[in-house]
Parts: sequence; C-alpha cells; structure tokens
Amino acid sequence: MNIILLSGGSGKRLWPLSNDVRSKQFIKLFKNGDEYESMVQRVYRQITTVDSDAKITIATSNSQASAIKNQLGEKTSICVEPCRRDTFPAIVLAATYLHDELGMSVDEAVVVCPVDPYVDNTYYEAVRKLQELTETGAANLTLMGIEPTYPSEKYGYIIPATGENVSRVKEFKEKPDIETAKKYLAQCALWNAGIFAFKISYLIEKAHSMLDFEDYRDLFNKYDTLTKISFDYAVVEKEESIQVLRYRGDWKDVGTWNMMAEVMADQTKGKAIMDETCVNTNVVNELNIPILCMGCKNLIVAASGDGILISDKERSGYMKPYVEKIETEARYAEKSWGTYTVMDVQPGSKTIKLSMRAGEHLTYHMHNYREEVWTVVAGKGKAIVDGREQFLRTGDVIVIAAGCKHTVEAFTNLDIIEVQLGDEISVSDKIKFTLM
Amino acid sequence: MNIILLSGGSGKRLWPLSNDVRSKQFIKLFKNGDEYESMVQRVYRQITTVDSDAKITIATSNSQASAIKNQLGEKTSICVEPCRRDTFPAIVLAATYLHDELGMSVDEAVVVCPVDPYVDNTYYEAVRKLQELTETGAANLTLMGIEPTYPSEKYGYIIPATGENVSRVKEFKEKPDIETAKKYLAQCALWNAGIFAFKISYLIEKAHSMLDFEDYRDLFNKYDTLTKISFDYAVVEKEESIQVLRYRGDWKDVGTWNMMAEVMADQTKGKAIMDETCVNTNVVNELNIPILCMGCKNLIVAASGDGILISDKERSGYMKPYVEKIETEARYAEKSWGTYTVMDVQPGSKTIKLSMRAGEHLTYHMHNYREEVWTVVAGKGKAIVDGREQFLRTGDVIVIAAGCKHTVEAFTNLDIIEVQLGDEISVSDKIKFTLM
Repeated sequence: MNIILLSGGSGKRLWPLSNDVRSKQFIKLFKNGDEYESMVQRVYRQITTVDSDAKITIATSNSQASAIKNQLGEKTSICVEPCRRDTFPAIVLAATYLHDELGMSVDEAVVVCPVDPYVDNTYYEAVRKLQELTETGAANLTLMGIEPTYPSEKYGYIIPATGENVSRVKEFKEKPDIETAKKYLAQCALWNAGIFAFKISYLIEKAHSMLDFEDYRDLFNKYDTLTKISFDYAVVEKEESIQVLRYRGDWKDVGTWNMMAEVMADQTKGKAIMDETCVNTNVVNELNIPILCMGCKNLIVAASGDGILISDKERSGYMKPYVEKIETEARYAEKSWGTYTVMDVQPGSKTIKLSMRAGEHLTYHMHNYREEVWTVVAGKGKAIVDGREQFLRTGDVIVIAAGCKHTVEAFTNLDIIEVQLGDEISVSDKIKFTLM
Repeated sequence: MNIILLSGGSGKRLWPLSNDVRSKQFIKLFKNGDEYESMVQRVYRQITTVDSDAKITIATSNSQASAIKNQLGEKTSICVEPCRRDTFPAIVLAATYLHDELGMSVDEAVVVCPVDPYVDNTYYEAVRKLQELTETGAANLTLMGIEPTYPSEKYGYIIPATGENVSRVKEFKEKPDIETAKKYLAQCALWNAGIFAFKISYLIEKAHSMLDFEDYRDLFNKYDTLTKISFDYAVVEKEESIQVLRYRGDWKDVGTWNMMAEVMADQTKGKAIMDETCVNTNVVNELNIPILCMGCKNLIVAASGDGILISDKERSGYMKPYVEKIETEARYAEKSWGTYTVMDVQPGSKTIKLSMRAGEHLTYHMHNYREEVWTVVAGKGKAIVDGREQFLRTGDVIVIAAGCKHTVEAFTNLDIIEVQLGDEISVSDKIKFTLM
C-alpha cells in the first residue's frame, strides 16, 4: 500500500489534552497490549499489520513533525507544509513529494486518509482494495464511503448511482438536516470521510492545470502564496470519472470527548480514584496530583497543565467556544528532544521543567531579553555556552545571561529546572545559530 | 465577653483544600465586602462586632499557630497545646493560661466555642447571654443548645427539663437514629454543639481534682502525659448543676463540601468557567490553570496543589475513607513567613516555590542530606549562609550545600524557586540553630 496520511491541525475539541502545539492524534489513550498508544501510533500499527510493506507518508505541519518523529521514529516519511493551506495544496505537495523526493512513479496509485478515525483493521483492507481499484484505471478518482449507522447532520454525503459495493458517484451533498439525511439513507448514501485514491499522474496533471509551479521544491517555496481550498471543493466535486467503494465496518470520528470516552482503553488514565457510586465516568489525568470522583454520573474529566475539563459527556461536543475564550499559553509540549512543562509563571519570571531524551540536543540559540538559570535535577549531559563546553550532572547550576548563545546535549535522559528571568519573557525571543 | 475558641484538628472532610497542615477554618471562602475571609477571620469579626472589647483566646495546636497569626495578626491570644489531647486537657490548659499567664481573675466567666460553625451575629449575642447567666452563679455549667431544624443523626442531644429559654438539663443523649431523634424533638431537645460557659474557678478546681499539676507552666510541661478525654465526657455529663440556653438562630456545621457550598460567598472562586447548562455547581480553584465545567449538575469541584475533588454534593460527606487512601504529602502550606508550594517531585529532587512576606524570615537551619539551589524570581532580601551575609535580588542564585546553615530575610515580598537535591529529601531533615 501507498498511503498519504493527513495529520490535521491543532484542535480544541479535546482540550485540555489537545492545544495549539499538541493535536489529538498524539494523545496516548489507546492500548496495544499493556502499552498506551496514540491515534497516530495505532494507525501506523494497523496499516503495517495489514501490509508490512506499506509506504506511509504523513502530510503535516511543521508544529507536528517533532511529535510524529517522537512517536513513530524514522518509520514513515514526513511531508511538512511550510504553512497551513487546506487539503488541496497539502495533497498536491504530498503527491509531488512522493514523485520528486521519494522517486515514486507517476503510474503508482496512492490513497489519502485522515489520521484520526478510530477503525479496526478491516478499514485498511478496504484501503488496499481502494488502491487496487485505482490501479485498474476504471476511474480517475476512487473514494471510500462510510455506510452510515444513523442519519447524521455532521457529515457530507456521497450519493452513489447504485447500492453495489463499488458504484459510480451520482452526486455529493453538503451536511444535511436530519430529515434530509433520512432521505439520503433511503438512496444508499454514504458518509464522505475524506478518503480517496488516485494515480500520481492524475493529481500532478490536475495540479499543473490549476497551479503555476515546476516541481516539489518550487511548490514548497511558493506554498505561502497558494489559495486555501479543500481537495473536495477543488477536485472531487468537479471530477466526472469518479467511483466509490462502500465500507461497512466500524468507523468512529473521535472528535469529541464523548466519542473518545467510548474508545479509550481504560476508564481512567493517570492518578484517579472513583467511589463506587460513579457511573459512566472517564478520567484522563496528566497532572501529578490525584483526582477524586464521588458520585459522578456520565462525566468526562480531563486534566493537563493547560487546564481541567469537567463535562457531561453529551455536552462535551459544545465546548469549543468556551475553550477559545481561555487565553493560556500551552503549558506542556512535546518537542523533538523531549518534553517541556511550565510549572510557574509570574511577572518577571517563568519556571519550566525540561525533560530531554538521551542522545537528543537543543538547537544552539540565544535570547535577547531573558536570563536563564538551569539546575540539573537528574542525568548527565553537556552544555555549550558561548562556545565553551561544560559537562553537566545532577546538581549542576548554570546561569545564562541574556545575549549568551547556548545549547545542551543529553548523554542520559536529562531533567533540568529552568528559571527564566526578565521583563519580556516570550517564546518568540529565540535566535538560532549553527554550532561550528 | 471572654471567649475561648477551640480551633480543632486538621481535617480531610474539605479535602483537597484542607490537609494535614491546613485546616478548614483557614480556607478563605466567605466574604466581608469585596475581601475573602476564612472561618476564623469571620468569627473574629462577628465577635468583635457584638462586643468590641471581647477578650478572645484561641486554643489550638502548634501546627495552626502560624496560620492564626497570618490571618488575625496579634489581635487574639493563642494558647498552644504541645500535642493533641482532646478537649478536656485543651480547655483546662486554656483556663489556666487565662488565669496564670493573662492574669484573669478566677471569678470571671468564660465561654468555650468551637471555631467552625457558620452563624450570624445573633449567635454571639447568645454567647454574651451565656456569659451573663454564668456570672449569676445559678449553675456551675451553662450550655448553649441549638434548636434543631430537623431530626438529625449527626449530633448529640441535650434534653432540657422544660421547653423554656433557660432550663435545667435533664440528661444528655448520644447521636441517635432518626426515629429516636424524632422522639427527642418532641421533648424540646437541643443539639449539643460543644458551647459551654463556666467560671474559671470552677474549672481550675475541677481540673485539680482530676489532674496532678501546679499551674499553667507545669501542666504545659506534662501535657503529653495526660489522658485523651473529651470535656463532655470528663465534665459535662457528670455535672449536676447544669443549665442550658436555647438558641433559635441560624447555625450551620460547615463540615462537608455540601454545607460549605451553601454558605460560600460566590459560586466560584479562582479560575473557573461554567457553560450555561451547569446547575447548582460550585467551583473552588486554587490552581493557576482554568477549570471548565460543561453541563455539570449538583457538583462541587475543589482543586488545590494536593489534588482535585469532583463530587456530587450529597456524596461529598462520604469522602473521608477515599481521601485517607491518598498518600500525598501536602503540596501547599501557609507558614509564619508566607507560603510554600511544591511544584515538582521526582527521585532525587523536589522543586518548591517559596513566597515570603516583606519583613519575615526563615529560621536559621541546615539539612544533612540535601543541597538546595535558590533562584530569586522577585523581590529583595538578605541571605545568611554559614554566617556570611549576602544581599539578594531578582535573578540571584545561591547554592547551599548539605550541612550548610542558612536563612533568608525578606525586605520586600520575596519569591524564590528552590530546587532540593539529594537521595533522601525529607521535611524532617532540618536542624534549627539560633542566629548569633
């Protein structure tokens, strides 16, 4: 199989575990044996179970590249968008990346899937079927349509010409009201879940007819000048030669806490205690303090360094406008080198815990407006401060004045308490250098 | 008025805001104008409103003395028990303290009240009446009985000889079942809420007949040898000459979150957001991250550095056994010099924020088994490390090796991030010295 996984934008719908720098696909709430895994890890495992030779490319933003590398290592290719431009530019960029950077033939078929539905392995068997159907050349585009389990208002619909397993597409419909959805279901309609397959040649020709660019590099460089437009709108809805494969297996859109609670491996994760009168309640606690639930009914409780959500499960789908009002900088983030956690913020200072993985290093950088005091609380490593090397071990303290270039390399896992001091503390006050 | 306020032990019933070092009477959830106040502040304000000349002595444990001084300043006397020995020894110690240390005449009448009921000012008018009744000498002991609002199983009962305002006491009854409670109510019974008045002479004579001691100092020194016994059991239930004053006003035992929610000044305190479908829900948030409630019904949510409680209001009275299972060191405490907050704990290190008030200082002390790294994040002060003075200001870093004596004095409000390092980090690793 040849798959482009679209790993979408930051979301607030699983706040406080998802935020501007951490998307829902990286939250580890599923399980594989005894180990927790994230959506992206689960999807990777499922695809490679169905086809151990699958070639997977993840199309994503710069902000997610580190998290993907942390969670999947070097096992997949990553095609990074320089900025966000919706799905049509992203898929064109990924297709040219496969051809120009990975050397894939224009005759190959590729399947584009979103990374976030919760499915079982039969879904990826259907994805393989989608690719095979595309290879036959029977249509320019082959979609996968999800057989609806109820008349939903939340999805767009594909109306097929027939109720057969594979059918020509008659037309597409926007999200309907429930009565209209019922009529669609009577016509054997399918949910449009954004899964489609094409030959690379088809998409590159289509792209050149719509966009002025030479190749992947050229497209990458002018990416910020492209218009934001969805693949559905730019391509799918205008294509005449289009067929759909009916998928009847399990498929869940894990976009709300209510849905997440249904598929979570355990009722609770993290420090949580429930009394025996709690009913249908889930707790996800990333804080290092306990959560005690007494007599809670139909609740989802989620706690991270960003905040605490306590929501009736049904209501959890409506929290976006409330979360948008919460103006907090993300207090926890996964980085390429490990994690950082904001512990304290007050005027003139910010205290952070850095946890670096063995073998990783920070970029060589400096800050114009803040001083930093580092105390090593566990592990060994090496600091370079204005070109001078210094070995680090537990208990060592380094003071880095504003304007001083610095970096750290972790020999073992390395934990540092960093106190930032200054009147203008900002994540944007960071100038990167190349270490000679 | 002449009042001994009993400020009782640490409680887990208002966890996570009450803990081993912070009792419920110090949590600021009430209001006086725009200012939040604690139970102990509210009681002090109410007594001095009824009688601006009231002499108030708080009988309490060592662990609460700092919190009382923080919240009331030097406005009350404090009689500190060297260790916990139940109410009879505590009241005898307080009575001898009034006589031997404060020079009060044995002829004076004194009223003993618990510090934690939620009442209005008429309660303290009844307390004054109690003292006046005692001064007449009509009985050795005069109790205040609370007129019940329902047949409760939670309180002991006083059965009076008559239903009059002041009556001889016929007998005392232990906490009954509801049916028995109904029978007591038919006999004009009153709740025994531990409020009683006596002349100092009465109690000191009684004490000498039961305990072998000379005076306050002697009793203080042998306090740990005394038997734990309640005042009710040792004195009240054996006394023949005893009367009761019927109190008909508001009186609430704020011992559970359900009761606290009824008398809290605001529906929420701290960072809290509720959607419009929340009903009868209260949030008390001491953390610096927001709590978002969606569709919550009849819940109490309380969050502190010790943990997070999410409880159905009715169930909140049953949480003690669950809280007892939570083995966490208190992560937040009020000290005589300010507050400390534990921010991070991992094997080999602990990171704390100290916030000292201007003019306060730590004791001069050392640790045998841990090193400390202090980073000043706000304010000015002076450190003394092994006798050497050093001025401190924002950005200063001090490393204090194990075995090194040290202290800090705050010139302004002073905030310090303290990283403790060592294999055996314990609050008991502290040796105090006198600063020469």
